[in-house]
Amino acid sequence: MEPTSPPTSTRLDPWLESYAARTRGLTASQVRALFAVASRPEVVSLAGGMPFVSALPLDAVAETVARLIRERGAVALQYGSGQGDVRLREQILDVMAPVGVTAHPDDIVVTAGSQMALDLVVRVFCDPGDVVLVEAPTYVTALGVFSSYQCEVVHVPMDEEGLRPDALREAVAAARAAGKKVKLVYTIPSFHNPAGVTQGPARRTEVLEVVQSAGLLLLEDDPYGLLGFDGTVPRAIRADDSEGVIYLGTFSKTIAAGLRVGWAVAPHGVREKLVLANETATLCPSNLTQMTISDYLATQPWFDQVKVFREVYRERRDALLESLEALMPAGTRWTVPAGGFYSWVTLPEGLDATAMLPRAVAALVAYVPGTGFYADGQGRESLRLSYCYPEPDRIREGVRRLAGVIESELEVVETFGSPRARADRPGPSAPYTDLA
Amino acid sequence: MEPTSPPTSTRLDPWLESYAARTRGLTASQVRALFAVASRPEVVSLAGGMPFVSALPLDAVAETVARLIRERGAVALQYGSGQGDVRLREQILDVMAPVGVTAHPDDIVVTAGSQMALDLVVRVFCDPGDVVLVEAPTYVTALGVFSSYQCEVVHVPMDEEGLRPDALREAVAAARAAGKKVKLVYTIPSFHNPAGVTQGPARRTEVLEVVQSAGLLLLEDDPYGLLGFDGTVPRAIRADDSEGVIYLGTFSKTIAAGLRVGWAVAPHGVREKLVLANETATLCPSNLTQMTISDYLATQPWFDQVKVFREVYRERRDALLESLEALMPAGTRWTVPAGGFYSWVTLPEGLDATAMLPRAVAALVAYVPGTGFYADGQGRESLRLSYCYPEPDRIREGVRRLAGVIESELEVVETFGSPRARADRPGPSAPYTDLA
Repeated sequence: MEPTSPPTSTRLDPWLESYAARTRGLTASQVRALFAVASRPEVVSLAGGMPFVSALPLDAVAETVARLIRERGAVALQYGSGQGDVRLREQILDVMAPVGVTAHPDDIVVTAGSQMALDLVVRVFCDPGDVVLVEAPTYVTALGVFSSYQCEVVHVPMDEEGLRPDALREAVAAARAAGKKVKLVYTIPSFHNPAGVTQGPARRTEVLEVVQSAGLLLLEDDPYGLLGFDGTVPRAIRADDSEGVIYLGTFSKTIAAGLRVGWAVAPHGVREKLVLANETATLCPSNLTQMTISDYLATQPWFDQVKVFREVYRERRDALLESLEALMPAGTRWTVPAGGFYSWVTLPEGLDATAMLPRAVAALVAYVPGTGFYADGQGRESLRLSYCYPEPDRIREGVRRLAGVIESELEVVETFGSPRARADRPGPSAPYTDLA
Repeated sequence: MEPTSPPTSTRLDPWLESYAARTRGLTASQVRALFAVASRPEVVSLAGGMPFVSALPLDAVAETVARLIRERGAVALQYGSGQGDVRLREQILDVMAPVGVTAHPDDIVVTAGSQMALDLVVRVFCDPGDVVLVEAPTYVTALGVFSSYQCEVVHVPMDEEGLRPDALREAVAAARAAGKKVKLVYTIPSFHNPAGVTQGPARRTEVLEVVQSAGLLLLEDDPYGLLGFDGTVPRAIRADDSEGVIYLGTFSKTIAAGLRVGWAVAPHGVREKLVLANETATLCPSNLTQMTISDYLATQPWFDQVKVFREVYRERRDALLESLEALMPAGTRWTVPAGGFYSWVTLPEGLDATAMLPRAVAALVAYVPGTGFYADGQGRESLRLSYCYPEPDRIREGVRRLAGVIESELEVVETFGSPRARADRPGPSAPYTDLA
């Protein structure tokens, strides 16, 4: 087999004039560019959001899949329903019970990962130019979806409890005053990616009230809801409004990301459109991966395994926070996540996380610069640290390297007379959020 | 868990005014509506296109997956590359060798089934109103994709060798004369779904010449290429043009549809955009299903298994054709597939396959009415018969029932003085296509 692809750098694209307008929003994310870097073993990657799937009982999963194929292979290897396996949809109700979501199995659409569900929701609702309100910062690949459907993204400020209801109300009013059509409010209320903060119960009520009074649809993305470190589970916003909230869930963080199984819970009319859109996009999700999850849920102590994951991530979160406290130069701030995978770091004044990244990689530590989580160029002073994948000792080593890089940057800033780093003592910028 | 979903028929959709314009093209396909019917065991379904996965060596597949998870579970259950597993992409080159496609592994994008690849190609190329030229009839869920991206679909007539180059040239000219932008020519050259015909080598050359001279991009969909019943494999059009053709392949018919693994081979600039679109839509295809296929290809006699599938389907095709010859009323015509899953039946004059469907289902046989394969209401006189899934005896019984329904319909037409069925003897409308 002889490769026919010539070297690519000098070749013109003959189809350059043929692409759809929406491709102007298709750009490589910084997370993606970092995967290549992060895969080098000498680099401590605090960049990627890979769950620590090695904590799974691999032998049990292997036996579950093998038995499934031997005994029900003719179904597991066949096309399935565009809405997803009905037994799995019933089990998803149990998985959502801790976050308080009640629904009928028919209200659930299973998708090839919750990313696909997010894509389908935007496909169903957003015409070019429609406004989507999102947190500042927000999940990077959600921005990719909004951009690929030519939405206008408006960032709404957060505080230590996440999305600010007052700012949300103002943003809706401003967009409408400008004659724009607001279609969705997208939020990650629990253990936010990338901000590491969580909306408390009162905050959720306020956010929902703003959304309801504006007659808007809330898109609640909840990949980390079961991963709270103190063992409590935040009540989903969807639990208090079944007609005005679309809820996105996933097995990527509670079982395994490599199975690509997520879901949406949606009001009836929306759900019908999501099923049709799902069929158009993929015909159906994989029966094999859906039934593997279904059998795993039915035969394994899956919630005990979630507790194992919590403990793994809590230990790593602690390693990160202790290292940050011990090593970060004055003026550095960070959020204190009560669950999930991420802390959001704000650098001392005058430093630029995007410009600093190559020097960090040279020092063998990787992170995601803050700008990746904004559609509008904000975030140069910030970065996201992930503690989900590396072992605690590696996290400590990564923070040590990062602290050294920041110190060097501060020296450069001082030497060249740029704005001085603030004299603040380093410390958490948000308290542990009490979700009890 | 108490279901919160009230009965749905009387409920208004509060989000009715919020949907995107593209949802007007999202309608339930006739194939989908038939799944419920076809699943009743007393019905002989000649409707669905489900491959006969029970012919797979299930124990070998089970052991392949189990070993994969035990030995490389930390990778198989993790997120992967947005372009797909690199080892699988190398193996896909071997899988495409029989159809003559040569490429570099970097030219391949693996997707959650080739339906996803089709969706991404249209996403990348088509703005609302852009024209896509397709065969008349064409694959039903491709129409769903074109519609969901608000394309204008123009059907190009076929003959017993598939897409007619002269008609294609005229259609391009007519669309351009009307000021429209033609973006893609979509074709299924081998063992067409639903038409059951195949482009011979000279026809492929003519089609490619028309496409090239018009400066257009060809989208070649090839799910059935390896399933020719005389053992020969048609040479893909992509084999003769690597810059002007996007080739779609799938493991759904050669291994298992339930794994949802397909791929696109695309020119360099297009491929880069497809990878970004793939990441936006699903982050990445499932590592588990990709690596399962990779290990299956590496350890099992996969091409021998393809030969087993060919033999299964050839036997069923023969059962279908023999029954049609023996039982169909005069004036009924059908295509004679040289591979793949489908024959296209044209009813005696005056009969309507869409109107006849409820009576067929009452007689316990199901098919897909021809109208489902057109965007413009054509096809009422035609229907698609699938022979891929039922055992030969069931196929014969299904044809017997269908012949009875058609005869009853003919009596109704005669009684009420509608146009008489033509006096033609029943028979194949296309010869066996020689692909040697």
